[in-house]
Amino acid sequence: MREVFYGAACSLDGFIAGPNGEIDWLDVAAARDESHRYLADLWSTVDTLIMGRKTYEDAFTYGDPESMGMLDGVTWYVFSRTLTGVRTKNTHLVRDGAAARVRELKAQPGKHIWLFGGGEFAGAMFAADLVDEIAINVIPVLLGSGTRLFADPGKRVPLEHAESRAFGGGCMLLRYRVAHS
Amino acid sequence: MREVFYGAACSLDGFIAGPNGEIDWLDVAAARDESHRYLADLWSTVDTLIMGRKTYEDAFTYGDPESMGMLDGVTWYVFSRTLTGVRTKNTHLVRDGAAARVRELKAQPGKHIWLFGGGEFAGAMFAADLVDEIAINVIPVLLGSGTRLFADPGKRVPLEHAESRAFGGGCMLLRYRVAHS
Repeated sequence: MREVFYGAACSLDGFIAGPNGEIDWLDVAAARDESHRYLADLWSTVDTLIMGRKTYEDAFTYGDPESMGMLDGVTWYVFSRTLTGVRTKNTHLVRDGAAARVRELKAQPGKHIWLFGGGEFAGAMFAADLVDEIAINVIPVLLGSGTRLFADPGKRVPLEHAESRAFGGGCMLLRYRVAHS
Repeated sequence: MREVFYGAACSLDGFIAGPNGEIDWLDVAAARDESHRYLADLWSTVDTLIMGRKTYEDAFTYGDPESMGMLDGVTWYVFSRTLTGVRTKNTHLVRDGAAARVRELKAQPGKHIWLFGGGEFAGAMFAADLVDEIAINVIPVLLGSGTRLFADPGKRVPLEHAESRAFGGGCMLLRYRVAHS
């Protein structure tokens, strides 16, 4: 069965964006080559992205995801009760039954599924025990406030450490497997 | 000049205690020997502990710090505007001017200073640029909610990665130097 992994870069205090959505701190010059290579490898293992409304809307803040190639050979599923439409190709809007739909996607053949962005939707996926792996690139900075990497899943989630890898510039990739209940 | 380091164990989502103060998850059997050895080494480098009111009060929840030897050869400074007295030996209550007092302590000869516990007081110390090092032992679990390791210092704090060390049981020690402004 294909897997859902939750991948993001975050500050040491657990934010994926600053209080005003800042992401300039993500671009650590000395880590650029390694982290781009790592991301390229990651992209080659997925054919599906799942995300909540906020992440979908934020995706346009930093450029056009379509012209950045983020929808080539990849299907997006946006989960939202309030969104009325989507404006990218290869994109499905799912209004209800997020957990059931993701469980269905996992049962289909294909590459892995990237749980994209942070916040509420990721919390719901952890709550439903649908996440198999966490891969975070810890950037050496404290932001103080902003968008949290981890929303409260409402329960304790035991993990198993899988890998630590030093990128340049003091960035640390930490990988964990979710110990399913 | 002696240094202030901020040391704690935390969950991957950045909590030092669960929503009801739980700390059972901190005791990872396979990491016990290494982390105890690490803590013993750490204790030998400090002669001063600084903390806020909440950490001081919490210290009694898990046993008597005096009979646990946590005040032998170590002076505690508790910073609080509301506390009226302390009940441990070698303990000073400081009501005002926390930043100035810690700056004074750093200028005195002696071993290093451990910024103990999380929360508001730690945030204030980061805000005043008084912390020199962060050492956290990342326990492989998501707690969802509880007491945060990092309070908002109200500004961005750049760090330099200093060390990563794997303890048993998937625990990861991450050490950072604060890049002082």
